[in-house]
Amino acid sequence: MKSTDLFRQIAFIKEVDKLKYILRRTKLFNSDRNENDAEHSWHLALMALVLAEHANVAVDLLKVIRMLLIHDLVEIDAGDTFIYDTQKSHDNTEEERKAAHRIFGLLPNHQAQELMAVWEEFEEGQTDEAKFARAMDRLEPLLQNTSNNGGTWTEFDVDYEKVYAKKQVIQRGSKVIWQYAEQLINDSVDKGILKKKDV
Amino acid sequence: MKSTDLFRQIAFIKEVDKLKYILRRTKLFNSDRNENDAEHSWHLALMALVLAEHANVAVDLLKVIRMLLIHDLVEIDAGDTFIYDTQKSHDNTEEERKAAHRIFGLLPNHQAQELMAVWEEFEEGQTDEAKFARAMDRLEPLLQNTSNNGGTWTEFDVDYEKVYAKKQVIQRGSKVIWQYAEQLINDSVDKGILKKKDV
Repeated sequence: MKSTDLFRQIAFIKEVDKLKYILRRTKLFNSDRNENDAEHSWHLALMALVLAEHANVAVDLLKVIRMLLIHDLVEIDAGDTFIYDTQKSHDNTEEERKAAHRIFGLLPNHQAQELMAVWEEFEEGQTDEAKFARAMDRLEPLLQNTSNNGGTWTEFDVDYEKVYAKKQVIQRGSKVIWQYAEQLINDSVDKGILKKKDV
Repeated sequence: MKSTDLFRQIAFIKEVDKLKYILRRTKLFNSDRNENDAEHSWHLALMALVLAEHANVAVDLLKVIRMLLIHDLVEIDAGDTFIYDTQKSHDNTEEERKAAHRIFGLLPNHQAQELMAVWEEFEEGQTDEAKFARAMDRLEPLLQNTSNNGGTWTEFDVDYEKVYAKKQVIQRGSKVIWQYAEQLINDSVDKGILKKKDV
């Protein structure tokens, strides 16, 4: 019984290795090399670890980290979704849901259900833990783009208004971090690496 | 006060990006591409998450994951140490300790001290959490090498006796996982991807 569970867990552990091949649009800090989803997930988990004290309300840190470690696994099947892509829906598509069932479904049933629920919670973004986890997910590329002379903003011609709209969800997780992030966005306009919409 | 802390935390978050450039000797599963330390750290944290139930005693999972997320950060300065390297000491060298002070020292003092202590605990390997975390660190390359036709064992001519000696510390964290791992090692000899020492 126990050993069947272990075999399923090992199959999952091998399968998720594929996350290391899923490239994001954003680049590593001060770099031309794209970040992959495994590196990104590690970075967000570590960010949550050191920034948790700034959450608007005390969060269950283990739950936040659990979310961040698994939040992009669906992209093994569904591919990376670029946040400023206007063609593709970003939330919990049918394709992503199918991927979640397949990938979490490799695990013993109780764990599959548990991680499926954690993933849904992250996607819905309503609990304190999901809000804080999502704040981490929005903060990292902001730090990367400001370190990379505009990064994806410049590369894909994304304007201040779009960036501001996407990034302000950070405040749902942490007003303190949002204050810092808002300043970074405004400074980026002053530095000319983020442009306001032409009017 | 709060915002000074945040600036220090952001400096740390940017610095640790460098872990993504530190290459290990082991390769991704069924692949020729070396794994980097950030990917490795993510994988171990996720492994701990799904395998925790097999620990010999109930462990504080958040502590285990905290260890695994930061355990290799010192390699940003000190470089990767190959477990079968006979020239270089593996434990807590002066170089690694200096690196830990520099990197964790970027954080606000209370966090720097806390993560330094967590890193030391992992290195010493005496607590239940450290034993389980170290079991994860030994298990991943075993899974990789058996998926990669011997991997680093073949590439660096490492024999069964050395592998067995290094891997058996897994049982200090989990007897259940060790039973599985021991079988994998023995099967590898039968398959000819791991050789016994010439006598």
